[in-house]
Amino acid sequence: MDALDELISTRRPGYSLPAEFHLSPEVYRLDLDRMILGHWHCAGHVSQIPAAGDWIELAIDIESVIVVRGDDGQIRALANVCRHRGSRICEGPAGHAKGARFVCPYHAWVYRTDGSLARARMVQDDLDLDIEGLRRFPVHVAEGLIFVSLATEPLGVEQFDEMLRRTIAPLAWADAKVVYTETYPIAANWKLALENQVECYHCAPSHPEFFKVHSQGRADIAAARLEVIDRAVGQGIDIACRDQWALAAVPGQEADYCNRYAMWGGAATASEDGELVAPLMGFTEPDGGFTIFYVGPFNHFLAYADYGAIFRYAPRSVDRTDLVVTWLVRGDAVEGADFDLDRLTWLWRVTAAADRRIVEANQQGVSSRFYEPGPYVMPMESSTNRLIDWYLDELAATSI
Amino acid sequence: MDALDELISTRRPGYSLPAEFHLSPEVYRLDLDRMILGHWHCAGHVSQIPAAGDWIELAIDIESVIVVRGDDGQIRALANVCRHRGSRICEGPAGHAKGARFVCPYHAWVYRTDGSLARARMVQDDLDLDIEGLRRFPVHVAEGLIFVSLATEPLGVEQFDEMLRRTIAPLAWADAKVVYTETYPIAANWKLALENQVECYHCAPSHPEFFKVHSQGRADIAAARLEVIDRAVGQGIDIACRDQWALAAVPGQEADYCNRYAMWGGAATASEDGELVAPLMGFTEPDGGFTIFYVGPFNHFLAYADYGAIFRYAPRSVDRTDLVVTWLVRGDAVEGADFDLDRLTWLWRVTAAADRRIVEANQQGVSSRFYEPGPYVMPMESSTNRLIDWYLDELAATSI
Amino acid sequence: MDALDELISTRRPGYSLPAEFHLSPEVYRLDLDRMILGHWHCAGHVSQIPAAGDWIELAIDIESVIVVRGDDGQIRALANVCRHRGSRICEGPAGHAKGARFVCPYHAWVYRTDGSLARARMVQDDLDLDIEGLRRFPVHVAEGLIFVSLATEPLGVEQFDEMLRRTIAPLAWADAKVVYTETYPIAANWKLALENQVECYHCAPSHPEFFKVHSQGRADIAAARLEVIDRAVGQGIDIACRDQWALAAVPGQEADYCNRYAMWGGAATASEDGELVAPLMGFTEPDGGFTIFYVGPFNHFLAYADYGAIFRYAPRSVDRTDLVVTWLVRGDAVEGADFDLDRLTWLWRVTAAADRRIVEANQQGVSSRFYEPGPYVMPMESSTNRLIDWYLDELAATSI
Repeated sequence: MDALDELISTRRPGYSLPAEFHLSPEVYRLDLDRMILGHWHCAGHVSQIPAAGDWIELAIDIESVIVVRGDDGQIRALANVCRHRGSRICEGPAGHAKGARFVCPYHAWVYRTDGSLARARMVQDDLDLDIEGLRRFPVHVAEGLIFVSLATEPLGVEQFDEMLRRTIAPLAWADAKVVYTETYPIAANWKLALENQVECYHCAPSHPEFFKVHSQGRADIAAARLEVIDRAVGQGIDIACRDQWALAAVPGQEADYCNRYAMWGGAATASEDGELVAPLMGFTEPDGGFTIFYVGPFNHFLAYADYGAIFRYAPRSVDRTDLVVTWLVRGDAVEGADFDLDRLTWLWRVTAAADRRIVEANQQGVSSRFYEPGPYVMPMESSTNRLIDWYLDELAATSI
Repeated sequence: MDALDELISTRRPGYSLPAEFHLSPEVYRLDLDRMILGHWHCAGHVSQIPAAGDWIELAIDIESVIVVRGDDGQIRALANVCRHRGSRICEGPAGHAKGARFVCPYHAWVYRTDGSLARARMVQDDLDLDIEGLRRFPVHVAEGLIFVSLATEPLGVEQFDEMLRRTIAPLAWADAKVVYTETYPIAANWKLALENQVECYHCAPSHPEFFKVHSQGRADIAAARLEVIDRAVGQGIDIACRDQWALAAVPGQEADYCNRYAMWGGAATASEDGELVAPLMGFTEPDGGFTIFYVGPFNHFLAYADYGAIFRYAPRSVDRTDLVVTWLVRGDAVEGADFDLDRLTWLWRVTAAADRRIVEANQQGVSSRFYEPGPYVMPMESSTNRLIDWYLDELAATSI
Repeated sequence: MDALDELISTRRPGYSLPAEFHLSPEVYRLDLDRMILGHWHCAGHVSQIPAAGDWIELAIDIESVIVVRGDDGQIRALANVCRHRGSRICEGPAGHAKGARFVCPYHAWVYRTDGSLARARMVQDDLDLDIEGLRRFPVHVAEGLIFVSLATEPLGVEQFDEMLRRTIAPLAWADAKVVYTETYPIAANWKLALENQVECYHCAPSHPEFFKVHSQGRADIAAARLEVIDRAVGQGIDIACRDQWALAAVPGQEADYCNRYAMWGGAATASEDGELVAPLMGFTEPDGGFTIFYVGPFNHFLAYADYGAIFRYAPRSVDRTDLVVTWLVRGDAVEGADFDLDRLTWLWRVTAAADRRIVEANQQGVSSRFYEPGPYVMPMESSTNRLIDWYLDELAATSI
């Protein structure tokens, strides 16, 4: 497609994207084929579907995927599209399939949790019901996190699986539990939302609440970072940081990234006053730091001493992106006794709402005929630049 | 148009339509030209416009048609578009033209109820005001039901006129009165809405309230049906059933269909408890049955022993369809004394609202890239299959 | 573009436009290039931004322009698009830039009121920050009114500047103050909104409140008009009327127009009862008349004896136009003591709301496949006809 090559060539290295990448429905369709559907998406955490028949929905673009735990304990991902006449079977965001059977509400076709068709009412004798059942998608569960791929040839999971084991196994995320989730619908192209997620150049002006307790976006934080790592190692927690993200990914493997930062101003965690808001996860005492890790372009995670947060970005259309934030705490923590939900979630609710406003203002601005791409500021926006380089590289590739 | 032929060829006989038929704006434009605007639409019942100047709106696609009773008692259909600068003249859904004159609210051009221009204020002397007036459309009134055609060459009315005379003349619909109407906007393509209307495979799972008192969708109802017909004939009511619907229509004539079914569980009518909810229409005692009849693809009617219901499907855009339900009772019935409006309308309000949800879930499902057409279940979905065969036949024809 | 020539040729002289001109996104894009962005737009009045750093937003199409008063007292117009990553900097409709500096809320780049970049935080040493700053647009201030052009080659301002001096200088608009502004979003193409603005054929049927106190749209008003002019001249106020509007514009200059009319029924001003609602502007006693003047296609003004009104039409998309109405009174008038805001604004709030309804009904009507262009009624709709002739002339020109 020559027009695409020409469009890609209009991007000046180190500068933000020309507007067409954020506005064109045609580019969005290519984005879906070549990047969005090619990567793994974190549907949630195993604690959200503890019993057989429990399910959560993974919504991407116009798609609805049911992520369900079966009788056999296995977690599977199924297209939420009946094989009879195409009705949605489940209405999200979560539910329970009674007797581990899905019954389509339209004509009551029944499916098992592995997607196979259990029963089609009153079918004619000569109808070939050798229907394979609901379309099934690859699932990978790692340290309690559930990942789903809608790709025809999924990227390898070995690298990010290893990263997760080295990162959150010591923090007991596999046994954690989800206590809250909130979806922030953002009226902007997904690339603007992700650009915002991966840099902290905007943290000081845009997120005073966040900036008060985090060191990112500050000068001279290298020493503080080393102290944090020392303190964690002193407790037997050695989180190996590494960068296999964006174009540094192992070929054929999903990208991954892990890094550690110091909290700021004496904060123990990301809360309004920096005080702990939940029981420690893995640590015996706060180390004054936190861990950030990525799986692919769409899944970002923060691990504080006392809680974790999952940030999933879901493109829904060319100018709409959902940010789904999920909070988790230690598995044995009891709401009311061990944590207060409002206090636990306050900082990231405030920060995600601000990000929504910021990214929407960005979309409005780049829509202008007077917008011109500007320079990414280094090193503060180096991850943003890497993200865009990665995106253009995948966009230029042949369709998956 | 080769692309259309190719698209039509992708439909597997006996299977639901490929998604493009429900999603493509181009297909919708062809649908309008080749099927929607070619058929008759039931605007309502004469009791809704008893006096000269009374009018109701018929809304289809983006069109607004005024259906008005004139000084001469005649009912006419006029485009709701002023011949001066194109303003809408009336704001729906119903009203009264004072003195049987329509006055455009913009510049006060005045039209008679036959559409002719009665007065244009302050026009220049040399302006050729030989304007023919508001565009007029063919109207056919049969047994109290008002039908309008927007086709350039309307289908013949003789067949459905005869069917209606044989069906509802004995039930006194010509003298009935409309007591309630409600519009259900459905976020789905019109074909999915009609597919749902013409089959009762979904009645058991989707409509427990309906299914409790109707025999459709049950096994072994043939005997009960014959008993019903016998009981009606015993009261001198002999409703001749026939099937000239879909591709069985008489060439050049609008399609029609009439059939009788038994109520279920001892119900006398379609109400919450099966008890009568209004005075008998035509019958001297309930026959334990009901009549279903169709005129063309878009108009469906139910005649119970004590009330009637009109179901008009109005495509509004590629992904929006209005279902307009109209309830009518015997002409001399008095609200409060002879019937309670809530009780009268309860079952079909509940059922129409459920159909809306079902059809919208169907639209969401077929929008998925993982949707594949599935098999219609015979005989339960034979009417649905006939509808789609009919549709594809008309779509393949040259433009009307 | 042959298709455009062909489309233009479908318009019958003296008749309203074929529907495609109001419905087609492609035509709207040409409208933007060839007419909308080529003309001057009145952003407001100097009294809205008295202090350095005060700004108001000018919103046209998807664009946001900041109109700001600088430290030096100068008024400038700047694109509301950060040169870093394109974010909107200000959120409208008005505000104050502290210290006469704009700080982008995203990454805190700082701009002066002349648009130049004052500071970019933490930029790398080798980044070429020879960024010229925010895009600047030509501004022309005349008699207190602020005009902005987004054209690459702006039309000349000399003619309308002179017209304004001769029209509103005697009425002290330069020293007036804005007391209220309201935006009426109209779901219609901008040409239908303007067609409505420039004719008073619709005033009698559509605006009884307006028609009670205005002479426009009445027969035999010539004599009353001359009396009004005499009474004004008797007070030393000689407003020279002229018509350089539409195709009568001086080549290369923005079009302008000025005319005087009599009030009606003994009214002194445009109020519910015709009584004055604010202190006289320029006059020592009411002259029983009012002045109407235009600058270009998009800006219309009314000057009554005691207040002024600015009507700005802002196309926002092919089927959405904002009408922004701004009321101003004598500079020393005090709310509560000298005028009551509700009474002052009542007539034009009622009238603008009615125009919104009328124009939306017009858009609905011309969307119909049964709409046909109709004749403009002369002389009542001569300005409408001139507007459309002007529009087609500019549309046929090569792109600006």
